[in-house]
Amino acid sequence: MKAVVIHAAGDLRIEEQQIEALGADDIRVAVRAGGICGSDLHYYQHGGFGAVRLCEAMVLGHEVAGVVEAVGDGVTTVGVGDHVAINPSLPCGACEYCLAGLPNHCNDMRFYGSAMRNPHVQGAFRQQLVCKASQAVKVPAALSFTSAAFGEPLAVCLHAVTRAGSLLGKRVLISGAGPIGALAALAARYAGAQEVVVVDLLDEPLAILERAGVDRVHNVAERPEQLAPYRAGKGYFDVTFEASGSRSGLASAIEMARPRGVIVQIGLGGDLDVPMGRVVAKELELKGSFRFHEEFAWAVGCIASGVIDVTPLLSAVIPIEDADAAFQLAGDRRRSMKVQLTF
Amino acid sequence: MKAVVIHAAGDLRIEEQQIEALGADDIRVAVRAGGICGSDLHYYQHGGFGAVRLCEAMVLGHEVAGVVEAVGDGVTTVGVGDHVAINPSLPCGACEYCLAGLPNHCNDMRFYGSAMRNPHVQGAFRQQLVCKASQAVKVPAALSFTSAAFGEPLAVCLHAVTRAGSLLGKRVLISGAGPIGALAALAARYAGAQEVVVVDLLDEPLAILERAGVDRVHNVAERPEQLAPYRAGKGYFDVTFEASGSRSGLASAIEMARPRGVIVQIGLGGDLDVPMGRVVAKELELKGSFRFHEEFAWAVGCIASGVIDVTPLLSAVIPIEDADAAFQLAGDRRRSMKVQLTF
Amino acid sequence: MKAVVIHAAGDLRIEEQQIEALGADDIRVAVRAGGICGSDLHYYQHGGFGAVRLCEAMVLGHEVAGVVEAVGDGVTTVGVGDHVAINPSLPCGACEYCLAGLPNHCNDMRFYGSAMRNPHVQGAFRQQLVCKASQAVKVPAALSFTSAAFGEPLAVCLHAVTRAGSLLGKRVLISGAGPIGALAALAARYAGAQEVVVVDLLDEPLAILERAGVDRVHNVAERPEQLAPYRAGKGYFDVTFEASGSRSGLASAIEMARPRGVIVQIGLGGDLDVPMGRVVAKELELKGSFRFHEEFAWAVGCIASGVIDVTPLLSAVIPIEDADAAFQLAGDRRRSMKVQLTF
Amino acid sequence: MKAVVIHAAGDLRIEEQQIEALGADDIRVAVRAGGICGSDLHYYQHGGFGAVRLCEAMVLGHEVAGVVEAVGDGVTTVGVGDHVAINPSLPCGACEYCLAGLPNHCNDMRFYGSAMRNPHVQGAFRQQLVCKASQAVKVPAALSFTSAAFGEPLAVCLHAVTRAGSLLGKRVLISGAGPIGALAALAARYAGAQEVVVVDLLDEPLAILERAGVDRVHNVAERPEQLAPYRAGKGYFDVTFEASGSRSGLASAIEMARPRGVIVQIGLGGDLDVPMGRVVAKELELKGSFRFHEEFAWAVGCIASGVIDVTPLLSAVIPIEDADAAFQLAGDRRRSMKVQLTF
Repeated sequence: MKAVVIHAAGDLRIEEQQIEALGADDIRVAVRAGGICGSDLHYYQHGGFGAVRLCEAMVLGHEVAGVVEAVGDGVTTVGVGDHVAINPSLPCGACEYCLAGLPNHCNDMRFYGSAMRNPHVQGAFRQQLVCKASQAVKVPAALSFTSAAFGEPLAVCLHAVTRAGSLLGKRVLISGAGPIGALAALAARYAGAQEVVVVDLLDEPLAILERAGVDRVHNVAERPEQLAPYRAGKGYFDVTFEASGSRSGLASAIEMARPRGVIVQIGLGGDLDVPMGRVVAKELELKGSFRFHEEFAWAVGCIASGVIDVTPLLSAVIPIEDADAAFQLAGDRRRSMKVQLTF
Repeated sequence: MKAVVIHAAGDLRIEEQQIEALGADDIRVAVRAGGICGSDLHYYQHGGFGAVRLCEAMVLGHEVAGVVEAVGDGVTTVGVGDHVAINPSLPCGACEYCLAGLPNHCNDMRFYGSAMRNPHVQGAFRQQLVCKASQAVKVPAALSFTSAAFGEPLAVCLHAVTRAGSLLGKRVLISGAGPIGALAALAARYAGAQEVVVVDLLDEPLAILERAGVDRVHNVAERPEQLAPYRAGKGYFDVTFEASGSRSGLASAIEMARPRGVIVQIGLGGDLDVPMGRVVAKELELKGSFRFHEEFAWAVGCIASGVIDVTPLLSAVIPIEDADAAFQLAGDRRRSMKVQLTF
Repeated sequence: MKAVVIHAAGDLRIEEQQIEALGADDIRVAVRAGGICGSDLHYYQHGGFGAVRLCEAMVLGHEVAGVVEAVGDGVTTVGVGDHVAINPSLPCGACEYCLAGLPNHCNDMRFYGSAMRNPHVQGAFRQQLVCKASQAVKVPAALSFTSAAFGEPLAVCLHAVTRAGSLLGKRVLISGAGPIGALAALAARYAGAQEVVVVDLLDEPLAILERAGVDRVHNVAERPEQLAPYRAGKGYFDVTFEASGSRSGLASAIEMARPRGVIVQIGLGGDLDVPMGRVVAKELELKGSFRFHEEFAWAVGCIASGVIDVTPLLSAVIPIEDADAAFQLAGDRRRSMKVQLTF
Repeated sequence: MKAVVIHAAGDLRIEEQQIEALGADDIRVAVRAGGICGSDLHYYQHGGFGAVRLCEAMVLGHEVAGVVEAVGDGVTTVGVGDHVAINPSLPCGACEYCLAGLPNHCNDMRFYGSAMRNPHVQGAFRQQLVCKASQAVKVPAALSFTSAAFGEPLAVCLHAVTRAGSLLGKRVLISGAGPIGALAALAARYAGAQEVVVVDLLDEPLAILERAGVDRVHNVAERPEQLAPYRAGKGYFDVTFEASGSRSGLASAIEMARPRGVIVQIGLGGDLDVPMGRVVAKELELKGSFRFHEEFAWAVGCIASGVIDVTPLLSAVIPIEDADAAFQLAGDRRRSMKVQLTF
């Protein structure tokens, strides 16, 4: 079985690995599509992010879908031949956070392709993946594997939308039009936002979102004056999803937020210089959003039923033999939104 | 009538001014006690804070209590001789924020002794104050004017506590033991917090809070190791009131907060470098709290009924003739918590 | 000018009335479409509901749209020829509830065609209506007046949906498929509900909702066994909108609600026998929802932009000359969902 | 070992039973005090309540405290000689509700002295109780066992208070001055309520609460006119704890609630006739509150530290030999508030 293994920044290899043994509660999935995520890119480009650093070789990948090709003796929920999206997070189910209904804060979380713990949790960019049957969500055979593999990043965004409180009738800003910002825009519209506005520094991802039906897009590098109306008075937006992770993105979001506005920060970032005086005077609410849990099956369901159409975000599908080229493309925001691998 | 007027940083004068005319809805109050607030100190020490700068001479002060000595023709709610605490905020009652139940975000707010608008709103450190009858909250004659003058800063803290959501049964951290941090500690205990812990860089204010009955105090400059247990695992505190306005205070609060913890930032500050990666990974909630409104009468009531005892926080009462010395003292956190003027 | 006037139960007359004078802030609207609401029907069938009884002749109607045919001197927001939907509620803007952001609880509310106060507030079923310009929301000329006249009942439902908290990803039950239940179903889907199920005692309104795209409908009179799966375990639905106003509807909703589920009661009703033991043991939340305010413009916007399609709910459009027949039809749930008048 | 066993309504016996075997995670507690609860009384007086009926002999009791006299091999958290209060609820820790942070809705809950499941869960009115070490909360040896045995009903009330949302600064009504209403009053004051008013039909329990320091009490049977000011306008109370379980108590609470007011129903009841028209028009929120979980240790802590003083509520302490007399006394609200047994 071939797997996509990162050894250090810039050192990505396709390696032959043993297929893991199948336990009673396990299934074996022939992986068919796997999306490259921002954290995969960070490992590839920088060997990690913040305090999280690669200490050993690690299979990348956590956005995958495929076909079940074997099931353990105790498995009743899925069968051979089923098409499935795989939830890459496996909380322990027994710690204080799991019992408090917060499994995404599990003290013993295992999350595919993550160097947060040592030894690292190996990822899902591999031809055969052995996982718990409970991680699999069935999808219709008619759904493409590439769409099904959007389940994980969409779950991240549905979690962020849930963290924001009701969006119904709200004015929503998306700061940063990468894959997470883009899916957050689709999720916000689905959640009944009255207006969804997206800002970024590049025209290419904004053009994709314009075609995907958001209300307005603004290139704040080229046309910063377009934001003036949102800054007028005490601000305009009820809710912001900050997915740029940049100081200027967050500061601008704070400037355009209404009193009592909510700003949800998604995605891992480092230290940011925050204009706290404005946060205080407008009584804003800055909330972190981290991963997901029950949102995974829901996200897959939204894709399967078509109520959220992710296809405009898929830029390219590339065989793992060309993984290096795929990661290069995924790192160029002018040329790609979401790049997926096939196995 | 004498008033305490700031002309520029360091230039504080006692000046003779005309008593204002009494309108039909107005009352005239002989001011008896007035607390020096952090913003008064900023004007005195630096001529302003952030973008708010003195552009003209301004009477300072917004924490006052006194005796009614005249009432306008239309006034029925208070009478001559009544002891009153004065609400220094006067929202317009007609803008979108007033009609949304958010008068502290009023588009046309008048707040005593504030250079936020031009011309500045003159303050209440004066022998005779003419104000709207609706700004006065009656207090028992048996209550000292000095205690009554704590109504305003306590209202700030009750508002912050309200912003935090229920504190009942929660573990609460107070970061910064100045007058606002100290009153927030008293308010948190009153709100049913299970544990109230205060941290600061100086022993003197912490000693005052220890006597006032908080559960634990820690001098983080002298004994930083005492915080280690709060940082263990994913953190300890459910709710933090950050009143230090410092980068290290906020960063430390973030480190000690539990997943989904709430951090309320009180008081005006500048830009702060925030470890957003931790905010995201623990899904914390950073909320600004700004001034107050309906909390004013409630705060005065808590002081009058004795359910919150502010007397341990009063360090000195000084006649306005020595206002300069009073401001010097108020600026020295080793020697004072709250300094008040008499008129 | 002709108006539709109720004198007593069953005594509906088309009467000639004077057109009212036009004040500076007023507009005059040629009414083109007006929907018959449940409360109109109650006046027609029973002379009132609960403690609210007709004490004098009253023009009915509060769901109207039309064309502006004159504007007062001070009006700048709409012009002659504009197509508008009219907000029938006029809160005072000055009482404690208006200032708390709760204008639907205004102490001095004027609401068209309501006998809640004496003298009654005359309604909008008239050929020429003089109202405040602030009550008018412009709609595109391409939008039909009949669709625009759905703005008011949709606002009622958007308010109810807002009262329920976020519906995103939730399982939603609609109890009662009258016009309010039907619009609540559309609003719930728009708000991102994962599943919308509607129950009623009649097939005809359920068939309309099935065509309008809800997930499932059940005739509980004919096929009560279909509800069994929803009652299994501790219940199924996260949120219920109870629009039947019946004892059995509410009791059944309680039975099918999950622990901590929310049940929003919409519409005026009398005393109901409630199984409080189940409400306690499952820790349910029963919430009333009453009218709307800021939701009106938003509802009209949803109709105008097409994100909510109300046209499947319109059963008949009848000239006021046949108002009696129109009210008869509106009272027969087998033959009609929403009946509108033309003027 | 002697135990207090109910066989049928009115048939209460003191029986000799075997002491249970001690497992590795278990402790054996010599029970010293046990409070008689309303549900114990229902079994004694009526053989059950609602659909819950006695089908076999059952040891009563779930409000107990005592001394540890033996511990299993695996127990490290408590030791022989420790004084403990015992949490009578044992959720499974593995079902969907346990994993959602709602263990009080556990699908496989075991709760002492409850006929909700068959075979019934035997209770704690016995001389020696074997339970999980995790059910024990240590109390200081200086605390009386009778006070410690108030931990369970106080936990019920802290849970109810938590369900209500923040009480800070709120006007609170307690409807019904039985032991649960009384403890809810103490909990509400502890939670920072601005005003706590208690109503009942009898003077005796109201007198106890007046001495315990609530703001006002009203006998609504004798002096119903005292409630008139609370009904004026649209109502007065922000939050109500309804602990009478009576139709008139709930209807009166609805009448006295402000728009958007919250009414928490505590305690098991049957069907009640509810004026839903008022619930709708004032947009009230009726919430059930059922048992507790994490609140148990917190309640015990509040009693141990003295921040909540339960001693005014203890009416009598009676040896189990006179259990019948104790139950008679507990059933007479004119002569008793809380009656406890000793073993």
